[in-house]
Amino acid sequence: MPTDPAALTAALIRCPTVTPAEGGALVLLEGLLSQAGFTCTRVDRNGTPNLYARWGARGANRSFGFNGHTDVVPVGDLSAWTQDPFGAAIVDGWLYGRGATDMKSGVAAFAAAAIDFVTDTPPDGAVILAITGDEEGDAEDGTVALLDWMTRNGERMTHCLVGEPTCPDHMGQMMKIGRRGSLTSWFTATGVQGHSAYPHRARNPMRALTTLLSRLPDQLDEGTGHFDPSTLQITTIDCGNPANNVIPARGTATVNIRFNDAHTGESIAAWLRAEAAKVEAETGVTIATRIQISGESFLTPPGDLSALISRAVQAETGITPELSTTGGTSDARFVKDHCPVVEFGLVGKTMHQVDERVEVAQIHQLKSIYTRILRDYFA
Amino acid sequence: MPTDPAALTAALIRCPTVTPAEGGALVLLEGLLSQAGFTCTRVDRNGTPNLYARWGARGANRSFGFNGHTDVVPVGDLSAWTQDPFGAAIVDGWLYGRGATDMKSGVAAFAAAAIDFVTDTPPDGAVILAITGDEEGDAEDGTVALLDWMTRNGERMTHCLVGEPTCPDHMGQMMKIGRRGSLTSWFTATGVQGHSAYPHRARNPMRALTTLLSRLPDQLDEGTGHFDPSTLQITTIDCGNPANNVIPARGTATVNIRFNDAHTGESIAAWLRAEAAKVEAETGVTIATRIQISGESFLTPPGDLSALISRAVQAETGITPELSTTGGTSDARFVKDHCPVVEFGLVGKTMHQVDERVEVAQIHQLKSIYTRILRDYFA
Repeated sequence: MPTDPAALTAALIRCPTVTPAEGGALVLLEGLLSQAGFTCTRVDRNGTPNLYARWGARGANRSFGFNGHTDVVPVGDLSAWTQDPFGAAIVDGWLYGRGATDMKSGVAAFAAAAIDFVTDTPPDGAVILAITGDEEGDAEDGTVALLDWMTRNGERMTHCLVGEPTCPDHMGQMMKIGRRGSLTSWFTATGVQGHSAYPHRARNPMRALTTLLSRLPDQLDEGTGHFDPSTLQITTIDCGNPANNVIPARGTATVNIRFNDAHTGESIAAWLRAEAAKVEAETGVTIATRIQISGESFLTPPGDLSALISRAVQAETGITPELSTTGGTSDARFVKDHCPVVEFGLVGKTMHQVDERVEVAQIHQLKSIYTRILRDYFA
Repeated sequence: MPTDPAALTAALIRCPTVTPAEGGALVLLEGLLSQAGFTCTRVDRNGTPNLYARWGARGANRSFGFNGHTDVVPVGDLSAWTQDPFGAAIVDGWLYGRGATDMKSGVAAFAAAAIDFVTDTPPDGAVILAITGDEEGDAEDGTVALLDWMTRNGERMTHCLVGEPTCPDHMGQMMKIGRRGSLTSWFTATGVQGHSAYPHRARNPMRALTTLLSRLPDQLDEGTGHFDPSTLQITTIDCGNPANNVIPARGTATVNIRFNDAHTGESIAAWLRAEAAKVEAETGVTIATRIQISGESFLTPPGDLSALISRAVQAETGITPELSTTGGTSDARFVKDHCPVVEFGLVGKTMHQVDERVEVAQIHQLKSIYTRILRDYFA
């Protein structure tokens, strides 16, 4: 009897897995996969739960891997939900719940596809599932921990597909062959406090910050071959001075930059520090700059892997997916150091929102696509 | 026996008069002035204590007025004071306490000068003291209430001197013949929240604010005949968004402007609203602008009154005071609608600071200057 990916999605939604809680999700998957002949290992690190499952020999010539996560973001305003976010109710063909699209349905679809595929037509090679319980949080002990463990234990994926939702509006529309990098910079400006009527005796940190920010454009380039333009957003500016006759001593600002392969995290960081230094020299205000590079940009150039995925999507949906590098970061930024990686999943429209939901039919369609990918890969 | 202005300052410091507390200060002054033949009236309004005192006839041909305040700003960091802020200790010739310079010494000096002057050489005219208990706060029911009451009751000053500290570094250095106006504008920008990786789906209110602020220069003009340049300071910018992958929906910024007679509050307000409207049109972010005009700029052109003050200062200190319009606002902005007004007082260096203090000798010197002004005025 084929594994029902919608029922499995519902079962996973009922597991309360707000990062980093395991919530029973990995235990459930481990049971199903073990039963189907997968060798399962829990690769927990620093309290973050992770599951590694392999069907076939460790030293197999050819191994296809799926990567995904069972953790979910918090429910937000519970009173605004029309359904229990952990209830998995089905209304008018839609399955409701936190993680319905991001990405319990993706995990359920590739787990169901993998189980049925190895059962029905045992391939000459290995099928690997690397599933983490922390993609939505710091992700320091999630997919990274799985990949570290794999390297140490001689486990290897030849190619990998990340099952994140990738389609903006309709099924089959888009796959991801890379991602822009992400960098955050925190600026703390320290000037000299004073009276608004005597500005020559003070140094205003808020003016230094607005001067700096006005020199950091919202768009850093025109885009490159496979990438959209690099973008910059001011995410907050804060000071907290309630007195309008006082020039404050200190203020902070944060920018987040999503950058393409025209840059590196280091080149962006050097540019930000240089701009801050110029404003320091001009204003006499000290600007401390703290920078965190969450991920470099990367690209899996179009080739055999993307063509394989594309054909499968086309065959099941009639649509040829766009090869895109748009959007935020995903765990593909870690996997790319291990093997060629692409991302394909369903429509992510409601991810992270109130009343997150997925069309039940699309879960079945996604399983069919993943099944076809496995069949073609090992053909 | 002459009235000791230093002892009176000390007595006033011992009255706890953080705005709007009367603290016994006006009661003390009313007692002394009544005894010297002044007609005293408490002109309290909405809980703010004020004292009006007149020596001489109400309909006098010629009346010289002093204006000042007995309230003080909070002590701030009490542990940083080396003396009790309400103890009036004298150390090495300095009298310590909150209000020592701003402006219990000024009030004591003009009260002592007025009492001794009318006692020793009763003038042909009136001497008026208009003393408020709220200059440091909102000042809505302080000197304004006194002036309103005077108008209603046929009380009038022909000329007025405000006894605020006016000398930056040494006694006699500066008098004020006007003040710049003051205006505060609060901007609230409301955009569309979104994900930092998808800026095209959001509208960033912080970028709208930095764009607006970058178009509002720190200096608005080159100054005019008697005025320094008009200046603008960003006093705060706030957002409070902790998530660097989120573009916030809302942010606020405040600017304070000190403007000379090249502008009016209305012309500045119109300019700010026009600039905000431009940014709204460019960005699609809504910017609500709330403006408060705390005072228009004003000037008492150099003439008989300033010459009288100048001569007295010169005679007592050997220094010819500069005629200035620098600094913040004072109650002279209200008095100017009643009669010609100038400001002269002692060195204000430590005002509003920890260990606020005044040289005892300067209090006596200030009383001598005020006495000479009265003598010359009625000569």
